[in-house]
Amino acid sequence: MASTDKPADTEYRSSLSTPAQAAGVDYFKFDVILRFFLFAASLVSVVVMVTGNQTKFLPFPRPAKFRYSPALVYFVAALSVTGLYSIITILASLYALKNPALKTKLLLHFLLWDALILGIIASATGTAGSVAYLGLKGNDHTGWVKICNVYDKFCRHVGASVAVALFGSIVTVLLIWLSAHSIHNRVPK
Amino acid sequence: MASTDKPADTEYRSSLSTPAQAAGVDYFKFDVILRFFLFAASLVSVVVMVTGNQTKFLPFPRPAKFRYSPALVYFVAALSVTGLYSIITILASLYALKNPALKTKLLLHFLLWDALILGIIASATGTAGSVAYLGLKGNDHTGWVKICNVYDKFCRHVGASVAVALFGSIVTVLLIWLSAHSIHNRVPK
Repeated sequence: MASTDKPADTEYRSSLSTPAQAAGVDYFKFDVILRFFLFAASLVSVVVMVTGNQTKFLPFPRPAKFRYSPALVYFVAALSVTGLYSIITILASLYALKNPALKTKLLLHFLLWDALILGIIASATGTAGSVAYLGLKGNDHTGWVKICNVYDKFCRHVGASVAVALFGSIVTVLLIWLSAHSIHNRVPK
Repeated sequence: MASTDKPADTEYRSSLSTPAQAAGVDYFKFDVILRFFLFAASLVSVVVMVTGNQTKFLPFPRPAKFRYSPALVYFVAALSVTGLYSIITILASLYALKNPALKTKLLLHFLLWDALILGIIASATGTAGSVAYLGLKGNDHTGWVKICNVYDKFCRHVGASVAVALFGSIVTVLLIWLSAHSIHNRVPK
Protein backbone atom coordinates (compact mmCIF):
# COMPACT_ATOMS: atom_id res chain seq x y z
CA MET A 1 0.00 0.00 0.00
CA ALA A 2 2.59 2.49 1.17
CA SER A 3 4.96 1.77 -1.70
CA THR A 4 2.27 2.19 -4.35
CA ASP A 5 1.31 5.53 -2.87
CA LYS A 6 4.88 6.77 -2.83
CA PRO A 7 5.40 8.08 -6.39
CA ALA A 8 2.20 10.08 -6.36
CA ASP A 9 3.00 11.38 -2.89
CA THR A 10 6.51 12.43 -3.89
CA GLU A 11 5.25 14.08 -7.03
CA TYR A 12 2.60 15.91 -5.03
CA ARG A 13 5.17 17.14 -2.54
CA SER A 14 7.68 18.28 -5.11
CA SER A 15 5.00 20.19 -6.97
CA LEU A 16 3.72 21.89 -3.84
CA SER A 17 6.78 22.35 -1.69
CA THR A 18 10.19 22.68 -3.23
CA PRO A 19 12.89 23.21 -0.57
CA ALA A 20 12.60 26.92 -1.21
CA GLN A 21 8.86 27.03 -0.66
CA ALA A 22 9.00 24.77 2.35
CA ALA A 23 11.54 27.10 3.91
CA GLY A 24 9.39 30.05 2.85
CA VAL A 25 6.42 28.81 4.85
CA ASP A 26 8.40 28.72 8.08
CA TYR A 27 9.93 32.12 7.44
CA PHE A 28 6.57 33.68 6.74
CA LYS A 29 5.13 32.41 10.01
CA PHE A 30 8.00 34.09 11.90
CA ASP A 31 7.50 37.09 9.65
CA VAL A 32 3.85 37.47 10.70
CA ILE A 33 4.76 37.11 14.37
CA LEU A 34 7.55 39.70 14.16
CA ARG A 35 5.31 42.10 12.24
CA PHE A 36 2.68 41.70 14.90
CA PHE A 37 5.32 42.65 17.52
CA LEU A 38 6.20 45.68 15.40
CA PHE A 39 2.53 46.69 15.22
CA ALA A 40 2.10 46.26 18.98
CA ALA A 41 5.26 48.28 19.65
CA SER A 42 4.13 51.14 17.37
CA LEU A 43 0.65 51.22 18.86
CA VAL A 44 1.83 51.14 22.48
CA SER A 45 4.51 53.72 21.73
CA VAL A 46 2.08 56.20 20.14
CA VAL A 47 -0.63 55.68 22.77
CA VAL A 48 1.79 56.08 25.70
CA MET A 49 3.30 59.21 24.16
CA VAL A 50 -0.08 60.83 23.37
CA THR A 51 -1.54 60.10 26.82
CA GLY A 52 1.45 61.64 28.62
CA ASN A 53 0.03 65.18 28.83
CA GLN A 54 0.44 66.67 32.30
CA THR A 55 -0.48 70.08 33.72
CA LYS A 56 1.29 71.59 36.72
CA PHE A 57 0.25 74.71 38.63
CA LEU A 58 3.42 76.75 39.12
CA PRO A 59 1.30 78.59 40.38
CA PHE A 60 -0.60 79.23 37.11
CA PRO A 61 -1.36 76.14 34.99
CA ARG A 62 1.48 75.09 32.67
CA PRO A 63 0.85 71.95 30.64
CA ALA A 64 3.48 69.61 29.18
CA LYS A 65 2.40 68.04 25.89
CA PHE A 66 4.24 66.07 23.26
CA ARG A 67 2.85 68.59 20.74
CA TYR A 68 5.12 71.29 22.18
CA SER A 69 8.26 69.50 20.99
CA PRO A 70 8.84 69.11 17.23
CA ALA A 71 11.05 66.10 18.02
CA LEU A 72 8.19 64.28 19.78
CA VAL A 73 5.74 65.23 17.01
CA TYR A 74 8.12 63.62 14.50
CA PHE A 75 8.33 60.59 16.79
CA VAL A 76 4.54 60.17 16.91
CA ALA A 77 4.25 60.65 13.13
CA ALA A 78 7.03 58.14 12.42
CA LEU A 79 5.61 55.51 14.78
CA SER A 80 2.12 55.99 13.31
CA VAL A 81 3.53 55.37 9.84
CA THR A 82 5.30 52.27 11.17
CA GLY A 83 2.05 51.04 12.72
CA LEU A 84 0.11 51.48 9.47
CA TYR A 85 2.93 49.83 7.53
CA SER A 86 2.94 46.84 9.87
CA ILE A 87 -0.84 46.37 9.45
CA ILE A 88 -0.47 46.36 5.66
CA THR A 89 2.47 43.94 5.74
CA ILE A 90 0.73 41.61 8.24
CA LEU A 91 -2.16 41.32 5.77
CA ALA A 92 0.25 40.80 2.85
CA SER A 93 2.17 38.20 4.85
CA LEU A 94 -1.03 36.32 5.77
CA TYR A 95 -2.13 36.45 2.13
CA ALA A 96 1.24 35.04 1.06
CA LEU A 97 0.86 32.15 3.53
CA LYS A 98 -2.17 31.06 1.49
CA ASN A 99 -0.64 31.85 -1.91
CA PRO A 100 2.91 30.49 -1.84
CA ALA A 101 3.52 31.61 -5.44
CA LEU A 102 3.65 35.23 -4.27
CA LYS A 103 6.30 34.65 -1.65
CA THR A 104 9.49 35.22 -3.62
CA LYS A 105 8.41 38.58 -5.03
CA LEU A 106 6.91 39.63 -1.72
CA LEU A 107 10.04 38.86 0.33
CA LEU A 108 12.14 41.21 -1.79
CA HIS A 109 9.57 44.01 -1.49
CA PHE A 110 9.34 43.44 2.26
CA LEU A 111 13.10 43.74 2.53
CA LEU A 112 13.24 47.00 0.55
CA TRP A 113 10.41 48.64 2.52
CA ASP A 114 11.63 47.28 5.86
CA ALA A 115 14.97 49.02 5.30
CA LEU A 116 13.15 52.33 4.77
CA ILE A 117 10.99 51.79 7.86
CA LEU A 118 14.08 50.92 9.89
CA GLY A 119 15.58 54.27 8.90
CA ILE A 120 12.40 56.05 9.98
CA ILE A 121 11.84 54.26 13.30
CA ALA A 122 15.53 54.35 14.32
CA SER A 123 15.85 58.07 13.60
CA ALA A 124 12.58 58.75 15.47
CA THR A 125 13.85 56.77 18.47
CA GLY A 126 17.07 58.78 18.44
CA THR A 127 15.22 62.09 18.09
CA ALA A 128 12.80 61.46 20.95
CA GLY A 129 15.48 59.80 23.09
CA SER A 130 17.63 62.90 22.77
CA VAL A 131 14.80 65.16 24.00
CA ALA A 132 13.90 62.70 26.77
CA TYR A 133 17.51 62.70 27.98
CA LEU A 134 17.60 66.51 27.99
CA GLY A 135 14.35 66.56 29.97
CA LEU A 136 15.82 64.11 32.46
CA LYS A 137 19.33 65.53 32.90
CA GLY A 138 19.22 69.00 31.34
CA ASN A 139 22.44 70.54 30.01
CA ASP A 140 24.43 72.94 32.18
CA HIS A 141 26.55 74.22 29.29
CA THR A 142 23.63 75.52 27.24
CA GLY A 143 21.52 76.38 30.28
CA TRP A 144 18.76 73.94 29.32
CA VAL A 145 17.19 72.98 32.66
CA LYS A 146 15.78 69.52 33.32
CA ILE A 147 11.99 69.36 33.50
CA CYS A 148 11.47 65.79 34.68
CA ASN A 149 11.62 66.79 38.37
CA VAL A 150 8.44 68.81 37.69
CA TYR A 151 6.65 66.85 34.96
CA ASP A 152 7.14 63.35 36.40
CA LYS A 153 4.23 61.62 34.65
CA PHE A 154 5.00 63.25 31.29
CA CYS A 155 8.62 62.10 31.49
CA ARG A 156 7.69 58.56 32.46
CA HIS A 157 5.43 58.38 29.42
CA VAL A 158 8.08 59.79 27.06
CA GLY A 159 10.73 57.44 28.46
CA ALA A 160 8.50 54.36 28.21
CA SER A 161 7.46 55.32 24.70
CA VAL A 162 11.08 55.65 23.55
CA ALA A 163 11.97 52.29 25.15
CA VAL A 164 9.10 50.57 23.30
CA ALA A 165 10.17 52.25 20.04
CA LEU A 166 13.71 50.94 20.60
CA PHE A 167 12.22 47.45 20.89
CA GLY A 168 10.35 48.16 17.62
CA SER A 169 13.64 49.13 15.94
CA ILE A 170 15.23 45.85 17.02
CA VAL A 171 12.22 43.93 15.68
CA THR A 172 12.64 45.73 12.33
CA VAL A 173 16.32 44.70 12.16
CA LEU A 174 15.24 41.10 12.88
CA LEU A 175 12.63 41.34 10.09
CA ILE A 176 15.34 42.41 7.62
CA TRP A 177 17.57 39.54 8.77
CA LEU A 178 14.69 37.08 8.38
CA SER A 179 13.86 38.28 4.85
CA ALA A 180 17.55 38.24 3.88
CA HIS A 181 18.03 34.67 5.11
CA SER A 182 14.78 33.64 3.49
CA ILE A 183 15.75 35.05 0.08
CA HIS A 184 19.27 33.63 0.43
CA ASN A 185 18.12 30.11 1.35
CA ARG A 186 15.75 29.92 -1.61
CA VAL A 187 18.77 29.36 -3.82
CA PRO A 188 19.55 25.70 -4.57
CA LYS A 189 23.11 24.99 -3.45
CA MET B 1 35.96 31.62 -38.38
CA ALA B 2 33.45 32.99 -35.98
CA SER B 3 31.40 29.79 -35.90
CA THR B 4 34.40 27.60 -35.09
CA ASP B 5 35.34 29.84 -32.20
CA LYS B 6 31.83 29.80 -30.80
CA PRO B 7 31.73 26.56 -28.75
CA ALA B 8 34.96 27.30 -26.91
CA ASP B 9 33.87 30.87 -26.36
CA THR B 10 30.51 29.78 -24.95
CA GLU B 11 32.14 27.26 -22.67
CA TYR B 12 34.60 29.83 -21.46
CA ARG B 13 31.79 32.25 -20.72
CA SER B 14 29.61 29.75 -18.93
CA SER B 15 32.49 28.59 -16.74
CA LEU B 16 33.51 32.11 -15.79
CA SER B 17 30.29 34.01 -15.68
CA THR B 18 27.04 32.28 -14.91
CA PRO B 19 24.14 34.77 -14.94
CA ALA B 20 24.48 34.97 -11.16
CA GLN B 21 28.17 35.78 -11.19
CA ALA B 22 27.86 38.19 -14.09
CA ALA B 23 25.22 40.07 -12.13
CA GLY B 24 27.39 39.80 -9.02
CA VAL B 25 30.30 41.59 -10.68
CA ASP B 26 28.22 44.63 -11.57
CA TYR B 27 26.58 44.76 -8.17
CA PHE B 28 29.90 44.60 -6.39
CA LYS B 29 31.28 47.51 -8.38
CA PHE B 30 28.29 49.63 -7.29
CA ASP B 31 28.74 48.22 -3.82
CA VAL B 32 32.33 49.46 -3.60
CA ILE B 33 31.32 52.90 -4.89
CA LEU B 34 28.43 53.23 -2.42
CA ARG B 35 30.62 52.05 0.45
CA PHE B 36 33.19 54.63 -0.51
CA PHE B 37 30.44 57.29 -0.33
CA LEU B 38 29.50 55.97 3.11
CA PHE B 39 33.12 56.18 4.25
CA ALA B 40 33.46 59.73 2.90
CA ALA B 41 30.20 60.76 4.59
CA SER B 42 31.26 59.31 7.97
CA LEU B 43 34.70 60.90 7.78
CA VAL B 44 33.41 64.35 6.75
CA SER B 45 30.65 64.16 9.35
CA VAL B 46 33.02 63.34 12.22
CA VAL B 47 35.68 65.87 11.15
CA VAL B 48 33.16 68.69 10.71
CA MET B 49 31.56 67.94 14.09
CA VAL B 50 34.88 67.70 15.97
CA THR B 51 36.28 70.91 14.45
CA GLY B 52 33.18 72.92 15.37
CA ASN B 53 34.44 74.10 18.79
CA GLN B 54 33.86 77.80 19.35
CA THR B 55 34.61 80.04 22.33
CA LYS B 56 32.68 83.26 22.99
CA PHE B 57 33.53 85.92 25.57
CA LEU B 58 30.27 86.81 27.33
CA PRO B 59 32.29 88.53 28.83
CA PHE B 60 34.22 85.61 30.35
CA PRO B 61 35.19 82.82 27.92
CA ARG B 62 32.46 80.20 27.38
CA PRO B 63 33.29 77.48 24.88
CA ALA B 64 30.80 75.35 22.90
CA LYS B 65 32.03 71.84 22.22
CA PHE B 66 30.35 68.72 20.93
CA ARG B 67 31.73 66.98 24.03
CA TYR B 68 29.31 68.96 26.21
CA SER B 69 26.27 67.22 24.69
CA PRO B 70 25.81 63.46 25.24
CA ALA B 71 23.72 63.41 22.05
CA LEU B 72 26.58 64.76 19.95
CA VAL B 73 29.08 62.42 21.64
CA TYR B 74 26.86 59.48 20.65
CA PHE B 75 26.70 60.94 17.13
CA VAL B 76 30.50 61.10 16.80
CA ALA B 77 30.89 57.57 18.23
CA ALA B 78 28.24 56.15 15.88
CA LEU B 79 29.69 57.83 12.80
CA SER B 80 33.21 56.67 13.75
CA VAL B 81 31.94 53.09 13.96
CA THR B 82 30.26 53.54 10.57
CA GLY B 83 33.50 54.87 9.10
CA LEU B 84 35.51 51.90 10.40
CA TYR B 85 32.82 49.50 9.20
CA SER B 86 32.87 51.03 5.72
CA ILE B 87 36.69 50.66 5.49
CA ILE B 88 36.44 46.96 6.41
CA THR B 89 33.60 46.32 3.95
CA ILE B 90 35.34 48.24 1.13
CA LEU B 91 38.33 45.90 1.55
CA ALA B 92 36.03 42.84 1.69
CA SER B 93 34.16 44.06 -1.38
CA LEU B 94 37.39 44.61 -3.33
CA TYR B 95 38.62 41.16 -2.27
CA ALA B 96 35.33 39.65 -3.50
CA LEU B 97 35.76 41.35 -6.88
CA LYS B 98 38.90 39.22 -7.32
CA ASN B 99 37.44 36.04 -5.79
CA PRO B 100 33.93 35.65 -7.23
CA ALA B 101 33.40 32.42 -5.27
CA LEU B 102 33.08 34.44 -2.06
CA LYS B 103 30.36 36.74 -3.36
CA THR B 104 27.24 34.84 -2.40
CA LYS B 105 28.23 34.34 1.22
CA LEU B 106 29.56 37.87 1.47
CA LEU B 107 26.40 39.53 0.12
CA LEU B 108 24.28 37.98 2.87
CA HIS B 109 26.71 39.07 5.57
CA PHE B 110 26.87 42.57 4.10
CA LEU B 111 23.06 42.76 4.21
CA LEU B 112 22.87 41.65 7.86
CA TRP B 113 25.57 44.06 9.03
CA ASP B 114 24.29 46.92 6.86
CA ALA B 115 20.91 46.67 8.59
CA LEU B 116 22.60 47.04 11.97
CA ILE B 117 24.70 49.98 10.75
CA LEU B 118 21.57 51.62 9.31
CA GLY B 119 19.96 51.42 12.76
CA ILE B 120 23.05 53.04 14.31
CA ILE B 121 23.57 55.83 11.77
CA ALA B 122 19.85 56.69 11.48
CA SER B 123 19.40 56.91 15.26
CA ALA B 124 22.58 59.02 15.54
CA THR B 125 21.29 61.38 12.84
CA GLY B 126 17.99 61.72 14.68
CA THR B 127 19.70 62.29 18.02
CA ALA B 128 22.07 65.00 16.77
CA GLY B 129 19.39 66.54 14.55
CA SER B 130 17.13 66.93 17.56
CA VAL B 131 19.81 68.79 19.54
CA ALA B 132 20.73 70.89 16.48
CA TYR B 133 17.09 71.93 16.06
CA LEU B 134 16.85 72.87 19.74
CA GLY B 135 20.03 74.94 19.40
CA LEU B 136 18.59 76.68 16.35
CA LYS B 137 15.02 77.33 17.53
CA GLY B 138 15.02 76.69 21.27
CA ASN B 139 11.79 75.65 22.97
CA ASP B 140 9.63 78.26 24.70
CA HIS B 141 7.56 75.68 26.57
CA THR B 142 10.49 74.15 28.44
CA GLY B 143 12.47 77.40 28.59
CA TRP B 144 15.34 75.98 26.56
CA VAL B 145 16.86 79.03 24.84
CA LYS B 146 18.39 78.86 21.38
CA ILE B 147 22.16 79.15 21.28
CA CYS B 148 22.80 79.42 17.54
CA ASN B 149 22.50 83.23 17.58
CA VAL B 150 25.60 83.22 19.81
CA TYR B 151 27.56 80.16 18.65
CA ASP B 152 27.16 80.65 14.89
CA LYS B 153 30.23 78.64 13.76
CA PHE B 154 29.47 75.77 16.15
CA CYS B 155 25.89 75.53 14.87
CA ARG B 156 26.95 75.64 11.23
CA HIS B 157 29.30 72.72 11.90
CA VAL B 158 26.67 70.69 13.77
CA GLY B 159 24.06 71.33 11.06
CA ALA B 160 26.43 70.42 8.22
CA SER B 161 27.54 67.31 10.08
CA VAL B 162 23.94 66.14 10.55
CA ALA B 163 23.15 66.81 6.88
CA VAL B 164 26.14 64.71 5.77
CA ALA B 165 25.11 61.92 8.18
CA LEU B 166 21.61 61.99 6.66
CA PHE B 167 23.24 61.46 3.27
CA GLY B 168 25.17 58.54 4.82
CA SER B 169 21.90 57.02 6.09
CA ILE B 170 20.41 57.21 2.59
CA VAL B 171 23.54 55.55 1.16
CA THR B 172 23.16 52.74 3.72
CA VAL B 173 19.53 52.17 2.65
CA LEU B 174 20.73 52.02 -0.99
CA LEU B 175 23.41 49.48 0.03
CA ILE B 176 20.74 47.25 1.59
CA TRP B 177 18.58 47.57 -1.54
CA LEU B 178 21.57 46.70 -3.73
CA SER B 179 22.47 43.61 -1.68
CA ALA B 180 18.82 42.50 -1.59
CA HIS B 181 18.45 42.78 -5.38
CA SER B 182 21.80 41.11 -5.85
CA ILE B 183 20.87 38.10 -3.68
CA HIS B 184 17.43 37.97 -5.25
CA ASN B 185 18.68 38.03 -8.86
CA ARG B 186 21.15 35.22 -8.25
CA VAL B 187 18.25 32.80 -8.36
CA PRO B 188 17.69 31.12 -11.72
CA LYS B 189 14.15 31.87 -12.83
